Amino acid sequence: MDLDLLKSLAVPAETKILLLVLDGLGGAPRSAGGPTELEAARTPNLDALAAESVCGTLEIVGPGITPGSGPGHLALFGYDPLVHRIGRGVLEALGIGMELTPLDVAARGNFCTVDGEGRIADRRAGRIPTELCEALAARLDGLPVPGAACLVRAVREHRFVAVLRGEGLSDALSETDPQRIGVPPLPVRALRPEAEAAARAANALVAEAGRRLADQPAANMVLLRGFARHPSLPTFKDLYGLTPGAIAVYPMYRGLARLAGMAPLPTGPSVAEEFAALAAHWPSHDFIYLHVKRTDSTGEDGDFDAKVAAIEEVDAQVPRALALRPDVLAVTGDHSTPSALKGHSWHPVPFILSSRQCRPDAVRQFSERACLAGQYSRIAGKELLPLLLANAGRLTKFGA
Amino acid sequence: MDLDLLKSLAVPAETKILLLVLDGLGGAPRSAGGPTELEAARTPNLDALAAESVCGTLEIVGPGITPGSGPGHLALFGYDPLVHRIGRGVLEALGIGMELTPLDVAARGNFCTVDGEGRIADRRAGRIPTELCEALAARLDGLPVPGAACLVRAVREHRFVAVLRGEGLSDALSETDPQRIGVPPLPVRALRPEAEAAARAANALVAEAGRRLADQPAANMVLLRGFARHPSLPTFKDLYGLTPGAIAVYPMYRGLARLAGMAPLPTGPSVAEEFAALAAHWPSHDFIYLHVKRTDSTGEDGDFDAKVAAIEEVDAQVPRALALRPDVLAVTGDHSTPSALKGHSWHPVPFILSSRQCRPDAVRQFSERACLAGQYSRIAGKELLPLLLANAGRLTKFGA
Repeated sequence: MDLDLLKSLAVPAETKILLLVLDGLGGAPRSAGGPTELEAARTPNLDALAAESVCGTLEIVGPGITPGSGPGHLALFGYDPLVHRIGRGVLEALGIGMELTPLDVAARGNFCTVDGEGRIADRRAGRIPTELCEALAARLDGLPVPGAACLVRAVREHRFVAVLRGEGLSDALSETDPQRIGVPPLPVRALRPEAEAAARAANALVAEAGRRLADQPAANMVLLRGFARHPSLPTFKDLYGLTPGAIAVYPMYRGLARLAGMAPLPTGPSVAEEFAALAAHWPSHDFIYLHVKRTDSTGEDGDFDAKVAAIEEVDAQVPRALALRPDVLAVTGDHSTPSALKGHSWHPVPFILSSRQCRPDAVRQFSERACLAGQYSRIAGKELLPLLLANAGRLTKFGA
Repeated sequence: MDLDLLKSLAVPAETKILLLVLDGLGGAPRSAGGPTELEAARTPNLDALAAESVCGTLEIVGPGITPGSGPGHLALFGYDPLVHRIGRGVLEALGIGMELTPLDVAARGNFCTVDGEGRIADRRAGRIPTELCEALAARLDGLPVPGAACLVRAVREHRFVAVLRGEGLSDALSETDPQRIGVPPLPVRALRPEAEAAARAANALVAEAGRRLADQPAANMVLLRGFARHPSLPTFKDLYGLTPGAIAVYPMYRGLARLAGMAPLPTGPSVAEEFAALAAHWPSHDFIYLHVKRTDSTGEDGDFDAKVAAIEEVDAQVPRALALRPDVLAVTGDHSTPSALKGHSWHPVPFILSSRQCRPDAVRQFSERACLAGQYSRIAGKELLPLLLANAGRLTKFGA
């Protein structure tokens, strides 16, 4: 549904919504005829919840499209992931916890080695230690460029993030990494006329970085890729009048939530600590997104049993969420990560939507296959949020 | 499906279609774990029909979107309710049985009280009796305004409808009601350049109304809101070559049907009389829409048992419809009205589609849950009409 339409229908309410995201929740059988991770997991609490809820599966982006974490979360937050793109530079910045603003263009950076003629000798500067990366990033942070402030932060080894912060900067910029050695870094070119100012700033950054790194034996130049503007999403406050919070251990998910205007809430690293944080912050927010990472990382590792255990660990915490008596509770994932595939996949993701207003369907178990028989057998990922709002009494009638 | 495409595929046939609309049909359990109204109702005729039909549920507008009666009916009539909007003024006019034309801009009006300086003292003129409203509306009806004819009709108490009828009038007009007292009514402003003529006509209406009401102690001025143009829908005749009729007790539903080019057919007020009217008019129409209101009004009242009874009353009439041997018969609703919510809701609406051409699915009971297992588990509301046409042999092959 169009965000403008949703905004026009949004009405205030005293209700609270909890969105529980098990990253990479959807799975697949380990061997032909076998159960998926979710089917293999003992999930008495989620099964009981499914039995009194409406269920379905989410097509996060579209049939056959494997979502990255950015599109996956944007869809769950109700944004069309095909319209609102999160570029590589922005995702990298969010991943290290940088607080971006709508004025920002972010890029992924590499420290690299150039020879006396300025030709690239090593695109990764011999994978310098992270400590050196941090020292060199600090050297570049704040360097003067025309028309923008420049922020540089270390990521890991040779990788860093560079952010240009200024009015009207475009991210229609070519990359400087020629993807091979023996040639000089490429200049940044404006791919559209409105990107000329950003190109000048980026080229000034590279030139000044070269001067400041001249004393380095290996990391004496930088390469910039994946220029991306902040997506400037309308926030949950703007759209729906919500005061949302986000509980996530990894910076990237807190950053994705912040794009939607959610306040990152402090939490310890374990799932139990995340649910403790949920209880602590529940009174002061009317929408909380809680993110669990291990369902995805175990899938990425190809560890079926560990993913089963991760799901069961969440199931054991569900009663603590129910004890808060959320008016609306949804449990789902941002994409599938079948351990059989050791990576994200396109498979639709099951979901439970629980509220007093819902008309329960016949689903009695929380699994990919059982949810196909639910009311929302297969809907778009972005269609979940309007359902949360409707069940929370936060959308008025369309037309008279 | 795009209306232009449907029109291009429409072919003549000798077949007849009956669309039976139980307003607000979809429901919800009265208490957790219980049946919905439709599940609780004894519906042997509808269940038998479901067993030999294809079934499904309709997402009238979209997930989480609660349809008003206008969008609900437009969707059932095959129009995209997000594209074809029916504004407040038009719906109010239809609700009192005004026959609108594509030249019309309709507004909801209030008689109000202004003081000697023209400031509003009572936005509802003390809720004057309906009889006085009728007398004053008659005084204003036909008053001269530039570039348009002016029609004024009483609604109830202080409320009336004003229609400007003229070539090229736009409804991009601001309202005159400041929504507070102590200030004068606002002038009507054109919100787009093409609305200047309509704004002049509306302001002339207000000025002249003030003069004609000057002798009134309370109702001495008018406020106008919700300016809306006739939606100018392509009709069933234009699109599909059908000669459609509408059987509905309430004016608004006859009016909505007339927007699609359906002829309102005379009927008595009871459900049995509506089915008698159906039999009487069946020979002269190839598409009849029959509307039953009480399934919605009982839901709005929060009366679960009365809604059950209303459904059972319709079920008892179904054999009379079947006796007419319609080539295609669909039974559905324009939205859900769960008695538990005492109002319209977003819950998908079940439907039965019966024809000799259909490929029956496994559904054996007419209910929200049973229909989820049908061929059309969840389709858009506007997608039902193409299915009716196809089953009636009224759509030819797309492409060669």
